[in-house]
Amino acid sequence: MIYNFIPDKVSRKPIYIQLYEYIRDEIEGQNIKNGDKLPSIRETSSSLKLSKTTVENSYFQLLTEGYLESIPKKGYYATDLKDYFPRKADQKEIPLLDSTHLQSYEEINYVNDNVHAGSMDFKIWKKLYNNILFYSVDEVYSSGSHQGEYKLRYEVSRFVNSTRGAHTHPDQIVVGAGIQYLIGILAGVLKHSVSTAAIEYPGYEKAKYIFDDYGFKTIDIPVSDNGINILALEKSNADIVYVSPSHQYPTGSLMPIQKRLQLLSWAENRKGYILEDDYDSLIRFESRPVPCLQGLDKNDRVIYLGSFSKILTPALRISYMILPLRLMEDYIKISKKYTQSSSKLEQLTLAQFIGEGHIDKHLRKIKRIYSKKRDLLKNYLESMWGDDIELISADSGLHTVISLRSNCDAQEIVDFFKSKGLHISVIKKHEQHFEISLSYSGIPFDALI
Amino acid sequence: MIYNFIPDKVSRKPIYIQLYEYIRDEIEGQNIKNGDKLPSIRETSSSLKLSKTTVENSYFQLLTEGYLESIPKKGYYATDLKDYFPRKADQKEIPLLDSTHLQSYEEINYVNDNVHAGSMDFKIWKKLYNNILFYSVDEVYSSGSHQGEYKLRYEVSRFVNSTRGAHTHPDQIVVGAGIQYLIGILAGVLKHSVSTAAIEYPGYEKAKYIFDDYGFKTIDIPVSDNGINILALEKSNADIVYVSPSHQYPTGSLMPIQKRLQLLSWAENRKGYILEDDYDSLIRFESRPVPCLQGLDKNDRVIYLGSFSKILTPALRISYMILPLRLMEDYIKISKKYTQSSSKLEQLTLAQFIGEGHIDKHLRKIKRIYSKKRDLLKNYLESMWGDDIELISADSGLHTVISLRSNCDAQEIVDFFKSKGLHISVIKKHEQHFEISLSYSGIPFDALI
Repeated sequence: MIYNFIPDKVSRKPIYIQLYEYIRDEIEGQNIKNGDKLPSIRETSSSLKLSKTTVENSYFQLLTEGYLESIPKKGYYATDLKDYFPRKADQKEIPLLDSTHLQSYEEINYVNDNVHAGSMDFKIWKKLYNNILFYSVDEVYSSGSHQGEYKLRYEVSRFVNSTRGAHTHPDQIVVGAGIQYLIGILAGVLKHSVSTAAIEYPGYEKAKYIFDDYGFKTIDIPVSDNGINILALEKSNADIVYVSPSHQYPTGSLMPIQKRLQLLSWAENRKGYILEDDYDSLIRFESRPVPCLQGLDKNDRVIYLGSFSKILTPALRISYMILPLRLMEDYIKISKKYTQSSSKLEQLTLAQFIGEGHIDKHLRKIKRIYSKKRDLLKNYLESMWGDDIELISADSGLHTVISLRSNCDAQEIVDFFKSKGLHISVIKKHEQHFEISLSYSGIPFDALI
Repeated sequence: MIYNFIPDKVSRKPIYIQLYEYIRDEIEGQNIKNGDKLPSIRETSSSLKLSKTTVENSYFQLLTEGYLESIPKKGYYATDLKDYFPRKADQKEIPLLDSTHLQSYEEINYVNDNVHAGSMDFKIWKKLYNNILFYSVDEVYSSGSHQGEYKLRYEVSRFVNSTRGAHTHPDQIVVGAGIQYLIGILAGVLKHSVSTAAIEYPGYEKAKYIFDDYGFKTIDIPVSDNGINILALEKSNADIVYVSPSHQYPTGSLMPIQKRLQLLSWAENRKGYILEDDYDSLIRFESRPVPCLQGLDKNDRVIYLGSFSKILTPALRISYMILPLRLMEDYIKISKKYTQSSSKLEQLTLAQFIGEGHIDKHLRKIKRIYSKKRDLLKNYLESMWGDDIELISADSGLHTVISLRSNCDAQEIVDFFKSKGLHISVIKKHEQHFEISLSYSGIPFDALI
């Protein structure tokens, strides 16, 4: 009973909590049973030699949580819990961590998917972030805009219009923590008008997952050296097609202008949409970046996806989507349903980082770094395998495609990359003809010399 | 033709880009037609008095994008685009921004949903964030863990076990940018085993939206003064129920222990799940926080949702979900499908903020602030309406529920709050009995004096 309680006076836990826990456990263990009357606060206080306040606090907590009931002028009674708490002896204990549930789980981080360590000017970033914390008091204690901070949308629209040839206004931009999150918003916008999504194959599977999750039918459309197969797309009955025309992942192909225009025609004839993922197209070494489909489109049928993960760092989670004007009304209807997913503090920092021109300097710097890295990689691979391999699509982006000549031992080359802990995608072209897609942005210079 | 090109020498745009754009526009406008042969690089260079390199760069870009074809030993030819570019005169121009698509859109930010301005110790936060930038080089240039940074999951598990009576291991925790994102992950885990989700009504609609989006059937279950109606839940055939037992939004009710146990029994009998949203339960003023369902559960059937939006600031986007062990295997299967949505830089900062004990100090501080604010609010409302209103559920959380006596003019009171720009939810109890749910965390002290 309650009088067996012995306070632990050396514990840092207050006595009233100890008493509350003691009585709670007695009720759960049915040592104090349904309807049992507890001694009054005064009695308990004097028996246990505790202050009245201590006992009051314990009882108050038990009342708050419903372990006790107070009946006016009668006293405190234990409530009936016996159906829910089996006696200790009957309890099946669940171990805190049953390792069978976890044993197959290991997170593999491939260093080559990173961006180049040391490429960011964090002195500038730090200064801008700190300024937000201390000089934007109204903004740092409130929720972010559903659509993304206006300051960032303004800077992104200027940036994407000038660097990618897009035509966009800040009001068409939606900011979110990653391309997948934004495709989820888009799925909400389109769900009453679109039922089938076509996706490049091989391609970025994470885009497909989201359409699957939202109940769209998804269809794989093969990709060849110059991008998606338009005939297969036309036959597919899809209403939206996901493409990465400026640097297809993983094949590295660049969609030429004829195919871009065919694709835009398809969208207009079909009254459908093109979802253009432009994730790393700013990084081209020899030619200028190829203007995006969104800028070529005259019919308001392209949805554009951009990200700062490859340009700055994937540790930041800031991506954006440009919606066609014709979808804005439907977006506005649902926009309030979703909270913003991207840190407002980092959104405001990025807005300043772009607005003050630091991003232009940064882009020039990383182009130099990745151009150098690509050259080193090329020399390195040639010194290893000479004529057995050929680097193709090495002019752009942060991954390169290596074609294996049919007479070489493909498995040996594949095993080599895996043994180095480098993530590769193997693309089968025809019987006995393989290509390997290798990201190199995160490989340190040292490893290539 | 091409010789009409006049370089703009004062423009900051390089001449080769000007020439590239000029030829591109000529091809798009069909002034240079399909199959037209272009002058050689040498001819163009000498006619236009431009360097050979300039012309080469322009042609190279046009080749890259597919506007030109190069036929060996013959020269450069314009490709066929006439089906795609109607002549300028035929084009229907889309205005850059057609305001009819946007006119109904205005983002309303209610100041009272904020957290208290000035409550964060940003000097500490800044120091920790800056340390991450400069001393965690390997981490800041790579993608975050799909599940969330281990350092943060470790600190969160200690924090939630000690402050909320949870029983969790870091491996059961999933970090994401907001409760909605995490419910999306959960929907992916459950989609093959669960089809119907029950949601408290009135309740947090944003939880319901996600289940809707993922194709679950959703059912509203009424909430009374002591939480969700268990009978209605039993009749619903739902397999999962979303509840906020420690401080229901918007009614402010606290679920007593009997009902908590009934709910746990329901889950065990049904072989279903309870989704416990514990968003602001750390902030109680008089009693201690009520332990969470996750800690009471002996049957591994509670999924717990926690967030730092109300405790720290909603400008940060860091929330977490605790999965039951029985769901870990299914989670692991899908975890790689989704990129992490929460900034890795801020995740690592938060891990330090908790690990070094700053959060405990912060919690003590905000409890003092919000307790004071609640008292001021109470006095303020009483001075305005005296006996016409009664504050209920004012012991916890960051919103309070105001009961309006049946003889008072409800509309006048509702209008008053709206005129102050304060967001309220009106809850109809019975005919002529209304309650108002009012968030007060963001109302400045000045406004209450």
